[in-house]
Parts: sequence; C-alpha cells; structure tokens
Amino acid sequence: MTTTVAAYAAPSAKAPLERTTIERRALGEHDVLIDIKFAGICHSDIHQAREGWGEAIFPMVPGHEIAGVVSEVGPGVTKFKVGDRVGVGCMVDSCRECENCKAGQEQYCVRGNIGTYNAVGYDGEPTYGGYSEKVVVDEAFTLRIPDGLSLDVAAPLLCAGITTYSPLKRWGAGPGKKVAVIGLGGLGHMAVKIAHALGAEVTVLSQSLRKKDDGLKLGADHYYATSDEATFTELAGSFDLIVSTVSAPLDFGAYLGLLKTGGALVNVGAPEEPVSLNLFSLIGGGKTLAGSMIGGIAETQEMLDFCAEHGIGAEIELIAAAEINEAYERVLNSDVRYRFVIDTATI
Amino acid sequence: MTTTVAAYAAPSAKAPLERTTIERRALGEHDVLIDIKFAGICHSDIHQAREGWGEAIFPMVPGHEIAGVVSEVGPGVTKFKVGDRVGVGCMVDSCRECENCKAGQEQYCVRGNIGTYNAVGYDGEPTYGGYSEKVVVDEAFTLRIPDGLSLDVAAPLLCAGITTYSPLKRWGAGPGKKVAVIGLGGLGHMAVKIAHALGAEVTVLSQSLRKKDDGLKLGADHYYATSDEATFTELAGSFDLIVSTVSAPLDFGAYLGLLKTGGALVNVGAPEEPVSLNLFSLIGGGKTLAGSMIGGIAETQEMLDFCAEHGIGAEIELIAAAEINEAYERVLNSDVRYRFVIDTATI
Repeated sequence: MTTTVAAYAAPSAKAPLERTTIERRALGEHDVLIDIKFAGICHSDIHQAREGWGEAIFPMVPGHEIAGVVSEVGPGVTKFKVGDRVGVGCMVDSCRECENCKAGQEQYCVRGNIGTYNAVGYDGEPTYGGYSEKVVVDEAFTLRIPDGLSLDVAAPLLCAGITTYSPLKRWGAGPGKKVAVIGLGGLGHMAVKIAHALGAEVTVLSQSLRKKDDGLKLGADHYYATSDEATFTELAGSFDLIVSTVSAPLDFGAYLGLLKTGGALVNVGAPEEPVSLNLFSLIGGGKTLAGSMIGGIAETQEMLDFCAEHGIGAEIELIAAAEINEAYERVLNSDVRYRFVIDTATI
Repeated sequence: MTTTVAAYAAPSAKAPLERTTIERRALGEHDVLIDIKFAGICHSDIHQAREGWGEAIFPMVPGHEIAGVVSEVGPGVTKFKVGDRVGVGCMVDSCRECENCKAGQEQYCVRGNIGTYNAVGYDGEPTYGGYSEKVVVDEAFTLRIPDGLSLDVAAPLLCAGITTYSPLKRWGAGPGKKVAVIGLGGLGHMAVKIAHALGAEVTVLSQSLRKKDDGLKLGADHYYATSDEATFTELAGSFDLIVSTVSAPLDFGAYLGLLKTGGALVNVGAPEEPVSLNLFSLIGGGKTLAGSMIGGIAETQEMLDFCAEHGIGAEIELIAAAEINEAYERVLNSDVRYRFVIDTATI
C-alpha cells in the first residue's frame, strides 16, 4: 500500500512550487522508508523545475540532497535498521548490471541512472525528490550519514559534496598539489573545504573579491578575482588541478594557461552552449580538459566518511518550505552562502 | 671553426627548397658531430617552411627526424663515441633548469625548448635541421638508435614515433585496452604500430576504407570509415583511449561519444582554428579531452628501445633530395605511405 506524504511540488515549468501530497510506493523487499529531515536546494533543482534542461515530468518534487532517519525497512534490508541516519543523493537506482554499475560508477550507468526526481523508475512510476516528508529508496542507493555529521549540514554533501570530492580524488588533489576552484557557490565552497582537507594548497578564482573572507575561512590559501586581468598573468602555469564549478561560459584558453604542464581542468559545472576551444592550449603543455558527474554510491559513502572525519559539512541557510520559491530567486542571484537547506518539518 | 655543409633550404616562405650550404658550429665541449644519413619529412616541416604557423626564420633547413652516425665528439662527451648510430628529434636544447626540464619533459621547457630548426639557440645563432649532410648537437639532445633498427626507418620515430608513443603510454594503452587512432598518416601509422605492440586492441578511424588493407597489416584489429555515420552508432562507448593524429576540425562531440566512461581523447594533431565543444560531452561520462606534444629526451630513448625490441620502424618512401618539393605536394595531398625519408647522400 502506498503512503500519502506532504511535499512541495512545481505543478508546471511556469508555476511556483506549492504544497501538495504525493504517493510513496509500498516498501519493497530491499526498500527503506526514510523520514526526511532536511533537503538541500541545488541549482539543478531550478534548471529542472523550469525546464531549463529540456522537457520535464510534472508535478515535480525536486530535491536530491536528502538527509533523514530510517523509519521502516523492507524484509530483505541488511544495511540499515530503524533509527539509522541516512542520506539520498542524485540517483535512486541504476541497471546494476552494466560495466559501469559493476565498477561502482552507477552515475554513468549505460542504461542511465534513475534520478531521484524528474525520472521514471524501473517500476514505470515517476520519482519524486526530497522536498517532502518521506521517501522510499532501495537500500543500495541509500547512504549512511556518520554520527559526527549533523543532518542539516550533511544534506548538501549528497550532491555538492560528492560532485566535487570525486574529481578532486581522481585528479590527485592532495599534499604538495596546487588546486584552484573556479566559483565560490554551493559546489565551490564544498570543493574548497574538501581540497583543503585532502591537503592541497587551495586557491579560489572568483569573479570578485566579495567573498574573499569567507573563502579563506573555508580553507582557501589564496583568493583571486578573475575580473582582474592581472590574475591570469600572475597565476600562469600555477596549478596541478583546476575544478570549475560555474556554468558561465569561461575563456578556457585563459584558464588552461593557469595549469602547470600536464595539469587538468575538470568541469563539474558547464555552460549549456558549446564553448570555443583552441586545441593548442591543450597540446602545448600536455594538458587535460575533463568533465565529472557526481560520483558512485561507494564513493559517496567514502566522501561522507571523509567529511565526518574532517568535520566537514556544508555552510547552510536553513529555510522553511514556504520560502522555497524566494530561495530559488536568491540562488539565481547568487545570493546564498552557500546552500539553502529546507527544514522538512515545515512542509 | 665552423664547418660548411650542403643542405636543402627554403630561401623564403614563397619559394621552393633548393640546394645551398650552411655553417655548422664548431664542436663544443658536449657536442657531437653527426653525419646525417636520413631525414624524415614531417607535415610540420611544410607548415613552417611556408609560414603556416606564423613568421619563420629564413633561409630554413627543415628536418627534425634525423638519423645518422657520430663522426666526431667534443672533449666532454661521455654518452657517445665516433661510429655510434644516433638520432635527433624536434629539439636540440632547453633551459635544463626549470621544473619541466628537471622532470624530463624538455619539450615543455618553461623558457621554451630550442627547435631543431626555425629557432634561435642560446648562442644566438639560428638552428638548421636535418635536410643536410651534417649537424652538431649537444649530446644531451642526441638519442641512441639501437642496433636492431635500420637508420632509414628509424628517422621518423624521432618525431612521429615519440609523438604517438608518449600519449599512448601516459593514457594507459596496453593489454585489455581498446585504442582508436584517428587518421592513418605519418603519425597515425606509427600510433597503430606502437599501440599494437603495447598490447592494445587497435581500431583505425579513417575518412574512408582506402587504406584498410594497410591498416590491418600495420597491426590494427579493426578499421572503420568515419564518412559512414553508422560508424559512430556502432562504436558508441567503445574505446578507453582515442588518439587523434589529424589536423582537420573534427566533430569532437561525436568522437567523445565513442569513448567508454572515463575515457580520454588525446590530440597530437589539431586544427589551427578553435573548435566548438559542448562540455556536457565530457561531464556525462567523466571523459577527458587532452593534448600531447612530442615527448622528453629520456622518453624518446625509451621509445627507440621499445621500437627496436618490437621490430618497429616507420613505413617509408625513400627519396632523393631533389624530390623534396614534389614530396611536399604529395604530403599535402595525403599521397604518401607513410613517411617520406630523404637519403641525405643525395644532397
């Protein structure tokens, strides 16, 4: 039997989100029922709710940064028990059979992972995200939130945390490495904290110096304004790794010039339009332009454990559900330090 | 005292190459005098002789695929003795002090490596390349050609060989890996031979099937025409690594689609104009677009040793010096299988 739960949903791409109810599926063999406590607001929630990324499924309950407590478990569940503190990120299922799923890279599932919302599950039913009271998720896509992490600041780790942790690890951020982070927003502030905790020397490259004090407090060693052309001269050839968290179209030639020989610029944010790139800016220094999308389930757990060990949570502004639409406008105006998190008790 | 030697030189960007004489510097402490036996013709010789890559130094003696025999050594030379079989590639000096030089990546010298021709050395004198009887080179930039390799087929290894060997090694070509090579020209045919010898499963992606028989003989396991759209459907998600050896502007989105998750497309050739790239084609599969430029001196020696061990030389068409201008036209028409090599005895 399905469970009726309160949620905030966009009825269409043109309408604001409003309170409604949705049905959660009956608990399957391997499902856990999660009482959602907090749900982060990711910029991509807005992209999808407003069909900025193409046709979407409505009504839409966004939210893929979910933290809560297990309140019921299916008969076959082995990883979790009632009362466990858990999280759910950007996906709730995948084929589990393809090369990528078997390699723990469910986010790149060949059949396509099943998004936490704005997707259709293998049962043919639409998925609904975290802006709601409860959610039913297969235990295989449920993460454990370590005791040391408060659920409110843990919620954004499920997307912003893993999205930045995964490329930082893959591309070798660590002691002796110089890492730059482009943009100090929801993703960027997590990249700074994580890169710092990994032992790298961290530089923020932001449009202005407006958030410089914050950046240094978050763990950055240096902070430069990209609106200042001197930045590109001064920092030429400086970095082993640059992580771009912005969706503005960058002058990639200029940023690739900031890499050391053999360095990598990894995009986790990206403009929707194609960019222009002179390949000699890669060839001349044996450089790399790469992309990265969230991370696999095992790596997400590794990230949560790492964050707990290092006392890393997101910097959040806690809001009531009634403030979601206003928060969306503020996200679009970059007016948030650094992640809105919905107290789902207010739904 | 300088030595006067015969050479073929372009007197200007507009004029054909003609026989002339040039001066080679007196042997310095660490210099070797090399009797050049063979010199390969690289497409970049033509780019530079015709100022396709910007203003150049004339008269220009091209040639950076040099194979010959040591005929005299400076008093401080320790690596070579008279009679040794040696090669010279794309560079004859670098600062030797910067981070990259110290890391054995002289090709990425921060001060800029000194090209074998069309450059000015630290002594203030222009450098002249391999289309000549003799050359004086510092032993540090002179390579040993192993006994098993004939000098004629070894010459092109000094550029085409190392240019493809270096990225194949860096990006993990080997047993169990599927490697595609875009273009079957001077660089491409070396990439096929080397990738095959490294143990990878090799696919050629060429405009047509015109050279298919050759490709398979050279070591390719598969051969596809990129003019056939079905190729991009059939091979979607197939390769761990793609090495592009062409300078035509490619549809990078389409080629990135041929990579497996986490795969890399490395450019050793590149169009002069910027390309258009949708970054989501990198993000969606954690993919990489990279560049690579020749290789360091130690790696070039490693490549020569590897080629000797595996019986790998270039496929060449030996020509007399008088045929250089005709050969240039044929290179521009892709009418060479697969590298012209000048018999410098004919100069």
